[in-house]
Amino acid sequence: MERAVLDYYASLWNAKWPHDKRDGETYWGFSLTMGSTEANMYAMWNARDYLGGKVLLWEETPDSHIIPSAAADFLPPRLVLRQAPLPKYNPNAYTPVAFYSEDTHYSFAKAMSLIAIKTFYELGMERYPNDCPLPKWRAKGRWPEEVPSEGGGGGEGTIDIAALKELVEFFAAKGYPILVSFNYGSTFKGAYDNVQEAGEQLMPIMKRYHLDERLVEYSPGLFDKRTGFWIHVDGALGAAYMPFIEMAHERDPKLIPESGPVFDFRLPFVHSISMSGHKWVGSPVPCGIFMTKTKYQLSPPSLPEYIGSPDTTFAGSRSGLSPIILWHQLSELSYEDQMKKAEENEAMAQYAYDKLRGLEKKLGKDLWVARSKLALTVRFRQARPDIVKKYSLSNEILIVGNEYRNYSHVFTMNHVTTHLVDALISDLSEEGAFPEFNLSKASAIIKGFTDTPITSAQIASFVPHWGRGYSG
Amino acid sequence: MERAVLDYYASLWNAKWPHDKRDGETYWGFSLTMGSTEANMYAMWNARDYLGGKVLLWEETPDSHIIPSAAADFLPPRLVLRQAPLPKYNPNAYTPVAFYSEDTHYSFAKAMSLIAIKTFYELGMERYPNDCPLPKWRAKGRWPEEVPSEGGGGGEGTIDIAALKELVEFFAAKGYPILVSFNYGSTFKGAYDNVQEAGEQLMPIMKRYHLDERLVEYSPGLFDKRTGFWIHVDGALGAAYMPFIEMAHERDPKLIPESGPVFDFRLPFVHSISMSGHKWVGSPVPCGIFMTKTKYQLSPPSLPEYIGSPDTTFAGSRSGLSPIILWHQLSELSYEDQMKKAEENEAMAQYAYDKLRGLEKKLGKDLWVARSKLALTVRFRQARPDIVKKYSLSNEILIVGNEYRNYSHVFTMNHVTTHLVDALISDLSEEGAFPEFNLSKASAIIKGFTDTPITSAQIASFVPHWGRGYSG
Repeated sequence: MERAVLDYYASLWNAKWPHDKRDGETYWGFSLTMGSTEANMYAMWNARDYLGGKVLLWEETPDSHIIPSAAADFLPPRLVLRQAPLPKYNPNAYTPVAFYSEDTHYSFAKAMSLIAIKTFYELGMERYPNDCPLPKWRAKGRWPEEVPSEGGGGGEGTIDIAALKELVEFFAAKGYPILVSFNYGSTFKGAYDNVQEAGEQLMPIMKRYHLDERLVEYSPGLFDKRTGFWIHVDGALGAAYMPFIEMAHERDPKLIPESGPVFDFRLPFVHSISMSGHKWVGSPVPCGIFMTKTKYQLSPPSLPEYIGSPDTTFAGSRSGLSPIILWHQLSELSYEDQMKKAEENEAMAQYAYDKLRGLEKKLGKDLWVARSKLALTVRFRQARPDIVKKYSLSNEILIVGNEYRNYSHVFTMNHVTTHLVDALISDLSEEGAFPEFNLSKASAIIKGFTDTPITSAQIASFVPHWGRGYSG
Repeated sequence: MERAVLDYYASLWNAKWPHDKRDGETYWGFSLTMGSTEANMYAMWNARDYLGGKVLLWEETPDSHIIPSAAADFLPPRLVLRQAPLPKYNPNAYTPVAFYSEDTHYSFAKAMSLIAIKTFYELGMERYPNDCPLPKWRAKGRWPEEVPSEGGGGGEGTIDIAALKELVEFFAAKGYPILVSFNYGSTFKGAYDNVQEAGEQLMPIMKRYHLDERLVEYSPGLFDKRTGFWIHVDGALGAAYMPFIEMAHERDPKLIPESGPVFDFRLPFVHSISMSGHKWVGSPVPCGIFMTKTKYQLSPPSLPEYIGSPDTTFAGSRSGLSPIILWHQLSELSYEDQMKKAEENEAMAQYAYDKLRGLEKKLGKDLWVARSKLALTVRFRQARPDIVKKYSLSNEILIVGNEYRNYSHVFTMNHVTTHLVDALISDLSEEGAFPEFNLSKASAIIKGFTDTPITSAQIASFVPHWGRGYSG
């Protein structure tokens, strides 16, 4: 069942399938036990070791010290993970630097901390504090914590490709391997990063600095050919349904006038994709898919027939329920059904948007109603706590211009009906449904930790835990 | 339900309960989505940051660069993770070094790689190759990859406490914080490390080198009091039932003549415990428990009322099914039932052992039959592949004296009946049920990667992937 599910998504995401360990271009993946956080962590881990010059080797004999001499000839081969020695010409060759936008799920900050990958912010502040290529930050002698999103808090929620390019080029020029994670359906705004355009603009940079393809020399004269960059797509949300929107758009552009940017394995620079099954698919327990290409697995390079560590996934015990739930759903729904479901969800988001705009008009109050392009979520001025709770809304603070704004958002997954949206609108029409938030009150709670100057050692491990769903 | 399940195990493991964030001695924990691998990884992560001098601080305002000046006064506080600066007197103060035995589940090697914690082997080979305190290894200018087990491959599977002490003291004397993980029900032999004795023997070492309690200075004049060691108990298997064996033993020492070593929060030096719900408990999907004490969470030290990052667990989306399954089982079984179940499983292991010994006699062949004390598993000479498959046995290669031996083992969880054991014995009585294994054949498969000398940079990232369930 897991194989069938993986093949289905490999086909949907235009990967070469079925998996064939002798063909590096075919997909490799697994069904998740924990949801996309597991997939994102696994992708970051794989990317860290791939870009960091780790090599998996088959050794005929373990190091002689654990072998009693009499038994030295009777050993099964084993896999060992080795670090390729740093090439003399580039001290940064095996220090991956991570880039993701300010609209990225907070689990990425967590993953960076867990897996010990430096972000461009950490490396920038530590080694090049005054050299940020973005003039606005350079002027302050600082770096942004994450890649800016287009238009900031008031924008669509998509990554600012021009800023990404400048930041990436800065580190690529210094020989660092590049790790970029894009959002395809961001957490709060449901925005789709333009993976295709961003990748196409980044590739000339990779070429210029020889990161499009490089040799990892793990033993004198023994090489392994790899990309010097890794592009991951966090499609927890969007990778599940946007392919059906594209299908529907191709069939009837009048009904579905546009589809999202291409994000899948049609793009030769995409290394890995994650998807959650408990979001759009509707699984009652966390599950999902991680997918990459066989060639990006760490594996004994010249012995493809012996590839495959016996435990290459993240969890020790994996959930057998996860592929069963995904299989069950796929076996019940045709492409036709999936397209219909996706179209209905999009229409429901638009319905919620229209209704909220109507309410705005009725109340004569700016409710900050916004829906990013093709998003399955609509955001608006934060509602009263009991309404947030009643409808399981989620809240977030966005900086729009010079203003801090408390937002709520509503997601229009399959269970949402016009009746439910109408009920929400009715509750939001009540007196006091949109209280004023005094942020200075919250900020006055705690004082006293930020007076002392920050050392570079402290900056090196700085991970922000703020915003993006925390304040709900 | 999760709280009820956690309280139940907190009580069973003699932790102070219920959880109270203002009382550092009370437990803190969560139900797992992925099983004990998740708990072990989380424990290692927590230990790495706790021992590594990381501090979580509440900041009133995020760094000024992300705040438009007009909004600077309207900010909610946020949590930031900072690195305490290294004290001048000890360059090793924040480099945790990990110790676990050669009988430890392979997921620990994986966790060390993922979370980037150095083992004593890596640090030893990198910095002190000729100084291993164990004479046998020092003579070879090497370190063992893991802490030896008592009696090696032919022993019970418990950690060699004398060797552990010497290894720990070596690094403690050099100022490294110490991370030890014990097994309570090891993967292959089902052995219980003597956590109590090991801990009691390690504590004077911790005292001697001021690791029993130390100050982490994260800002000039601002301190945080912590232990300089972390002791984790991987009780994936044993933490679920050994408390009931102890209860049964205390009630009727004639029926249950002994209980296992104390492993739980009665021992003041135990920091964390993990347990799987899909092993002894019998959950159909991976689940379980991670438990530590509130005081070991990274948290703003002087502001206990504001403790608690909004996402302190491992998975982004956690499985609600996990606590439900555990709750369901606990609500159906009284302590009486649990004791009975545990006793029956122990008796079944003994039944399997006796039957295999009987077979040995009947066949006149040494079947290497062994059962570690109170283990729910019996190991014996590796059976023919079809028998292994039919009974879902698991295989492993053990080095016994100068000999490589292929073993199978059988676990006697609740589903195992005397009928099933008899059927296995009957199949094992057949001609050819115990084929000879030619390990030299396996080792001849691949050649050519070990001729080149290993550099210290390579050793630094050496993680063995061999043995412990891989060969099944």
